[in-house]
Amino acid sequence: MLSSKIVKHLNQLQEKKYRREFGEYIVEGFKGVGEALDHAEVVMVVVEGNRRGEIEIASCIHKAEAQGIPVEFCGRKDIGNIKTTDTFPGILAVVDIPECHLEDIADGPIIVLENIKDPGNLGTIIRTADWFGITNIMVSENSVDHYNPKVVRSTMGSIFRSKIYRSHHIRTECEELKNKFGYSVTSLDIEGAPLPAKITNTERMIFLFGSESHGLSPELEAVVDVRYTIPGKGKAESLNLAISAAILMSRL
Amino acid sequence: MLSSKIVKHLNQLQEKKYRREFGEYIVEGFKGVGEALDHAEVVMVVVEGNRRGEIEIASCIHKAEAQGIPVEFCGRKDIGNIKTTDTFPGILAVVDIPECHLEDIADGPIIVLENIKDPGNLGTIIRTADWFGITNIMVSENSVDHYNPKVVRSTMGSIFRSKIYRSHHIRTECEELKNKFGYSVTSLDIEGAPLPAKITNTERMIFLFGSESHGLSPELEAVVDVRYTIPGKGKAESLNLAISAAILMSRL
Repeated sequence: MLSSKIVKHLNQLQEKKYRREFGEYIVEGFKGVGEALDHAEVVMVVVEGNRRGEIEIASCIHKAEAQGIPVEFCGRKDIGNIKTTDTFPGILAVVDIPECHLEDIADGPIIVLENIKDPGNLGTIIRTADWFGITNIMVSENSVDHYNPKVVRSTMGSIFRSKIYRSHHIRTECEELKNKFGYSVTSLDIEGAPLPAKITNTERMIFLFGSESHGLSPELEAVVDVRYTIPGKGKAESLNLAISAAILMSRL
Repeated sequence: MLSSKIVKHLNQLQEKKYRREFGEYIVEGFKGVGEALDHAEVVMVVVEGNRRGEIEIASCIHKAEAQGIPVEFCGRKDIGNIKTTDTFPGILAVVDIPECHLEDIADGPIIVLENIKDPGNLGTIIRTADWFGITNIMVSENSVDHYNPKVVRSTMGSIFRSKIYRSHHIRTECEELKNKFGYSVTSLDIEGAPLPAKITNTERMIFLFGSESHGLSPELEAVVDVRYTIPGKGKAESLNLAISAAILMSRL
């Protein structure tokens, strides 16, 4: 049985304002929890009591205990009270949100995302960036919270390896990266030059992506130095945002 | 007011077995309905009565009437009874499933998909293929139905421009494409050669993608001629399926 205080806390962490207040977020499922235990600061692990014997869950419990992290067991009744993305995944963890400043991400190529609304898109972009070795990410204030459980899940563990800076004023901060750190800004645009097979010297490059439905805001358009387009042959009106971003990243 | 017969029919089309029985599927929203009216055989359009004046919806009504397609108006009560993916989108259409045989897709590069479970992935792959001018698609019987409303929605209209063949026995049919039509089979595999910047002479190539969680079945592995891998630098375990497929398609 969980205390009602813990249940309340877990449910609060479904909401962005409480995630900010407590500086914590939730990771669901043994895969995510296992990676969090390896790569992040885990505050607490919550396990469905009658699944504690399952090999992947037992392994997480073992890892947590070895690090002195509290493990709480919950019963069927608790599960009915805990909000999760889908059905209760057998195990979840409360994880500390790491601090990240603008300077922290200014060490190599940066993905900058403005006004991204779909959690799956944001998570997939973080995962794809990690695959291609890009771990510096800036997310605009008006995007979906990157510690939203659906985003966390779709990063498939990459969120623990990325430095993600939540922007306060994205245009000013892009300009700061340009002026203070020598970055240039590249974006995708239907009127850009064809995307080359290989983009080189990316150490001081920002790759900027705008909203799924409206693209970049005019305010951000103004900081772009280079525009590329992904040449298409068919009649589709556009590509999905995460797809466009991935095709670009695969050329770096 | 809709007749109870129409409401029942619309709700049945949420299920694969009835889509097959009637040879029809549902397209939701003015964007999809508009494209269906341009590119597909629309059987009926259903409009939320008090939204008939909205410009995009009025334009669909006009198009439908010009083609002699019945337009039904529904009230608030009907809407409560009609199942849709999210809230009722103001307009939907019932569309004929076109016939598609194996021979129909054997005229250029083919995307073959085995055991795809996520509707968003399947829809996004169809949309991306359309962007790159690939309209021949084969989907294994054990994949999510490509006329599932969530798939249809995430194709963003590309489903109307693609030839999609539902496979009965995917291995036999891949072999038939190889032996009878001279195709070769390329797949992505962690142990393949690095994906080249450009794949040429694709007219008789099959690009084969397996399930999100298990990759290709051993049965299908056996028909693969060429294996590529998407080189990664980070620690992510894998790429999302639709992302991998898109990166490959962007090289054709």
